[in-house]
Amino acid sequence: MNFVEIIKNKRDGNSLNAEEISFLINQFTKGNIPDYQFSALLMAILLKGMNDSETAALTNSMLNSGKIIDLSSLKGKKVDKHSTGGVGDKTSLIIAPIVASTGIYVPMISGRGLGHTGGTLDKLESIPGFRTDLSLSESMKVLKKCGAVLIGQTKEIAPADKMIYALRDVTATVESIPLITASIMSKKLAEGIDGLVLDIKTGNGAFMKSHGDSMELANSLISTAKSFDKKVIAFITDMNQPLGNYIGNWLEVYESIQVLKGKVKNDLYNLSIKLAGAMINIGNKARSFQAGEQIAKDKIENGDAFKKFLEIVELQGGNVNYINNPEKYSKSKFVKKVHSDKSGFIEEMNTYQFGMASLELGAGRRTKSDIIDHKAGIVLYKKIGDHLSKNDIVCELRSDSISKIKLAEKMIIESIKFSKPKPSIPKLIKKVIL
Amino acid sequence: MNFVEIIKNKRDGNSLNAEEISFLINQFTKGNIPDYQFSALLMAILLKGMNDSETAALTNSMLNSGKIIDLSSLKGKKVDKHSTGGVGDKTSLIIAPIVASTGIYVPMISGRGLGHTGGTLDKLESIPGFRTDLSLSESMKVLKKCGAVLIGQTKEIAPADKMIYALRDVTATVESIPLITASIMSKKLAEGIDGLVLDIKTGNGAFMKSHGDSMELANSLISTAKSFDKKVIAFITDMNQPLGNYIGNWLEVYESIQVLKGKVKNDLYNLSIKLAGAMINIGNKARSFQAGEQIAKDKIENGDAFKKFLEIVELQGGNVNYINNPEKYSKSKFVKKVHSDKSGFIEEMNTYQFGMASLELGAGRRTKSDIIDHKAGIVLYKKIGDHLSKNDIVCELRSDSISKIKLAEKMIIESIKFSKPKPSIPKLIKKVIL
Repeated sequence: MNFVEIIKNKRDGNSLNAEEISFLINQFTKGNIPDYQFSALLMAILLKGMNDSETAALTNSMLNSGKIIDLSSLKGKKVDKHSTGGVGDKTSLIIAPIVASTGIYVPMISGRGLGHTGGTLDKLESIPGFRTDLSLSESMKVLKKCGAVLIGQTKEIAPADKMIYALRDVTATVESIPLITASIMSKKLAEGIDGLVLDIKTGNGAFMKSHGDSMELANSLISTAKSFDKKVIAFITDMNQPLGNYIGNWLEVYESIQVLKGKVKNDLYNLSIKLAGAMINIGNKARSFQAGEQIAKDKIENGDAFKKFLEIVELQGGNVNYINNPEKYSKSKFVKKVHSDKSGFIEEMNTYQFGMASLELGAGRRTKSDIIDHKAGIVLYKKIGDHLSKNDIVCELRSDSISKIKLAEKMIIESIKFSKPKPSIPKLIKKVIL
Repeated sequence: MNFVEIIKNKRDGNSLNAEEISFLINQFTKGNIPDYQFSALLMAILLKGMNDSETAALTNSMLNSGKIIDLSSLKGKKVDKHSTGGVGDKTSLIIAPIVASTGIYVPMISGRGLGHTGGTLDKLESIPGFRTDLSLSESMKVLKKCGAVLIGQTKEIAPADKMIYALRDVTATVESIPLITASIMSKKLAEGIDGLVLDIKTGNGAFMKSHGDSMELANSLISTAKSFDKKVIAFITDMNQPLGNYIGNWLEVYESIQVLKGKVKNDLYNLSIKLAGAMINIGNKARSFQAGEQIAKDKIENGDAFKKFLEIVELQGGNVNYINNPEKYSKSKFVKKVHSDKSGFIEEMNTYQFGMASLELGAGRRTKSDIIDHKAGIVLYKKIGDHLSKNDIVCELRSDSISKIKLAEKMIIESIKFSKPKPSIPKLIKKVIL
């Protein structure tokens, strides 16, 4: 097969067959196709698209570039959740223990934060001792013992995805639905799961800003999952304001503990219950979403979910003292309360800027090599629809640097739009797609 | 400036400003932008296009990546011709001496053959001793002395074009009108010319197969030339059959000699007169095309053109004995006359296949490193509209390899379509655009 001819084909809008796609991925992974040819192909794919069978073939080739975890020795269903990411999105920390406590296995491979969004791995690593870099055999042991494990992408899992993503990142070819789909699904399918719940974020803090793009991604992910005979449900959920009230790694663990203990029943709680309910339904532990949601609520109320969380943390090397006594965690040098300079209702929040402000405080990464300050971040006192009088507290900023706090404060104040009449609050769950 | 943002911009169909384009070309030429990023940009340009001012800015940046020859010391106009290439297209060899003999300077930078098309440099180098690799100062001396010089792209001329072309060639990004335009024009403008005549080939042996594509390229080239205040005329000419009757390097020099001596008045002669006439008009030596054409004809009839050709060959190191006595040139080991297996009129010739058959005989290159057999090629006895009885000679094949001749013969026979009624002959000059 001639690689330039395949690029030409895609460039001219033709569809590639499974054999061609498999050739591309194999040869690229082996280093036989130079980056400069592959990046031209990536741009052609971004601009000309791929149909469902091309996307499935791409996913399959990327999946088979590495190891597929064999979970057949574990009795019971294996279900995972994937979120496309946003600001304050810490549902994985809440859902994994809830669902695992019902007897469903949750083998979860997560990512790190970059830019305005946080990453589950970074959040977990804010727990002293917590290891996300378990080997596959260590992970299997944890999963067997407690029903859930939360790790990063090992080098055995979909190595083609790692190589392709690195190239997409520097060639303006990230925003392609088929490439995003294959990247997500190749990793998720490598987990050896039976089913998957998707949380597609949409809004000004999401990767997909428009409802149309979110729907397109949801449909592409669903179609790919189905072509691999996986059960799948997608939720399109709001990301026009941060999820929950805490942004920053340890701060998000802290909020997750509050939700798992049943102390907080905010938007984060509501979304976690929805997603967990769907997973419990897919995992055959409930006949319907509603029944699944009720089980999820019960698991919080009866303490099973929090107990499961402690178990996971302990098995992955984390110090549970901090989970039981979060007030012991070390504090940022500076805590600054941001006061409103206007009065009125919060009408809009530039969620992307909230994420960037959190990054500025030390909670995020501008480049992959940046080091994270786990304590840093933002505690939101108010969200969309809440009323503020002049000088009321909007939020609290935490950082070890006073200059960073000053910059973040400016960003936060500019990110909030007020209105005199009470505005409508964005609907949390915008759509459920089966 | 952020390179990924610029790629994104083009990817999204926005136009780039001159500053961005200059940044791209400078940084790529300096090696500061890796090939894998630049090839993604090239694919975005191919698929999203560039408007006239982007194309002009790209041309300008590529032009200024190298030296622009300063011909201001030469009194008189400097005019060149560029052809997009085809099979049997040897007009440069005829036009340069005609036009130079009128007192117009013709500083001509040409290319090599690749694939089905031949290249002017290869044809000239079939003349023993002829040097196309003159330095810029050597070229200036030749140009000053005889009014014309025919050389290859030196490393001082538009180095950005060389680097970009090498990348386009392996990333399926050759067929882009703005990229083709900038590649052609950056080299032509570097010659220090006042005007340019364009010969855009269209048809089954041309790079641009459709009339629409040819028109688009012509308009893009004209618009770019005008933005640099150059006089320009474009001819859209037929390439649905080889031009003239000889294909192959020395064979084409031989035919050019026949035309320059006034012995042959075929389609090659007619086109050469047209193009030379336009150059003479642009170079202010004739008031109209028609007057220019008349001067071109006179220059052949009175022997000035042939004398000028001898002068050029001599100054560039070529052995004029072979020009004066072409029958002395060494012959191919095998000469095979191809007979028709049908009778009727020639209705169509697959010109691309004629070019490939000539390559097969040894006259062309499949890859850049292939070595050319200067003697090899095809002599056509018949062309479109000519009648053949069964067993009449179609053409003559010349090669040092009998197996290559057998393969070429098969290709030639398959390339000709016959018809019973006399077919219409393709019009040689399809359009003139000012």
